[in-house]
Amino acid sequence: MSSTYNIIVMGPAGSGKSTLTKALAEWMENEQLSVAKVNFDPAAESLPYVPDVDVRRYIKARDLMVEKGLGPNGALIASVDMLINYVAEIREEIDETRANYAIIDLPGQLEIVAFRRLGPQIIKELVRGVKAVAIFLFDARLASVPSSALSLLLLSLSTLYRIQLPQILAVNKIDLVLSKEELPKFEDYVSERVFLVKLLSEDYSCYDVSGIQTLLSPEVAINICESVKQVYSNVIPISAQEGIGMDDLYGEIQRAVAGGEDYLTEEPSGRL
Amino acid sequence: MSSTYNIIVMGPAGSGKSTLTKALAEWMENEQLSVAKVNFDPAAESLPYVPDVDVRRYIKARDLMVEKGLGPNGALIASVDMLINYVAEIREEIDETRANYAIIDLPGQLEIVAFRRLGPQIIKELVRGVKAVAIFLFDARLASVPSSALSLLLLSLSTLYRIQLPQILAVNKIDLVLSKEELPKFEDYVSERVFLVKLLSEDYSCYDVSGIQTLLSPEVAINICESVKQVYSNVIPISAQEGIGMDDLYGEIQRAVAGGEDYLTEEPSGRL
Repeated sequence: MSSTYNIIVMGPAGSGKSTLTKALAEWMENEQLSVAKVNFDPAAESLPYVPDVDVRRYIKARDLMVEKGLGPNGALIASVDMLINYVAEIREEIDETRANYAIIDLPGQLEIVAFRRLGPQIIKELVRGVKAVAIFLFDARLASVPSSALSLLLLSLSTLYRIQLPQILAVNKIDLVLSKEELPKFEDYVSERVFLVKLLSEDYSCYDVSGIQTLLSPEVAINICESVKQVYSNVIPISAQEGIGMDDLYGEIQRAVAGGEDYLTEEPSGRL
Repeated sequence: MSSTYNIIVMGPAGSGKSTLTKALAEWMENEQLSVAKVNFDPAAESLPYVPDVDVRRYIKARDLMVEKGLGPNGALIASVDMLINYVAEIREEIDETRANYAIIDLPGQLEIVAFRRLGPQIIKELVRGVKAVAIFLFDARLASVPSSALSLLLLSLSTLYRIQLPQILAVNKIDLVLSKEELPKFEDYVSERVFLVKLLSEDYSCYDVSGIQTLLSPEVAINICESVKQVYSNVIPISAQEGIGMDDLYGEIQRAVAGGEDYLTEEPSGRL
């Protein structure tokens, strides 16, 4: 059993997975934790961090286009599917870092991992025998629109059924929906600005979603809202770009994955 | 107001959108309907049909890689986002075909259309002032696994919140889950083989989903199932590859989009 805790960063294209991988790793390293940054995206071109483990050592989407005569879409899909052949080696590389935590930056397109046949099997192999938690990232601009916020929660729920890992929800890019003046006191503003945060707050009543324009009847919309609120009771507002909310996020990770053991209050070491 | 009815084919990567576009068009043309086949995927490389309207006239993902120095993922995203600049012209091209129906084959990656900021706006422009219905395609192999079937229904529901078009659900590739002997009598077998079909049948009770292994409590899982069944009461089993189920699919399209007017029972004409 590996002693490295695994943090799987997932979310739709453009939700800020790579930026979070960098920001969270920096924050944790600053707290004297050892962190392995893992690029798990064979189509990554430029990353904001230097990966400690990199799937592109085994497979690159761009090379597949030339080698197999594929288009960009075909190459993306084939490169992720082909990870099944290398996932054991990648797992070994991660374990060899002997880091406290591995932050694993999933492919840009959530859909190729979550809604194709091989994806969940690859993730299962990746986290076999290790403690793992997923961070599901939302873009704050989408999460601010009520119908889109509900859509995003259904998407993370849909992903939960396929990739059965405990999920921590995080709304990223709050710097894009709050002013510079509001950002340092984001807790005061974020639930008013970002509907998804408001929806998941304890005092929000699903009867209010019937005002949201959808094709669904109010009764059905309310039921969906209530189902979602039964699953998710919390979302962490963050800005990976500005390094905001990393302490809250780490607190959640720690609760989910370490079950109370806190590397921050214990002596950190390479080997547990 | 255009007189062309629009059928928007959507679904995750690999669900068989292009194959369905071809099969459905052939079936309808065989019924003396005029059909415009629209490729709306700037990253399409080879299509099983000859498009009457083709977005690649305006933009190609592969060219963007060279012109803008993008990787395959960046090129896919940029090419779909850039459709916003051409959607009015594409709309005009579709109208000029004066076809009874336009079948619009969306980009391979559902996520770029549904879960990024510009996608829903592009679709809104595309169907402005025309009657439109979406066909949401599932892969029968995924739909056969209970947890994945629920995941797929949550995905289509998630998409409904972002792209507010009436949805017809179809389970494609039933030829891959039924034997050659069973296929001609697929109605007798499909609900036993494909859990998603069973789940949406009238006599399925959501209390049975509590047996499905998930991270959710049985109570929550049952509520989610009931919410989903309130939204969706029907799914059409098809095989685009084998041309099976096209008549049922057309029946649904006709009910949804033409509201009772049946081109098949009226005199078809280029102009209504």
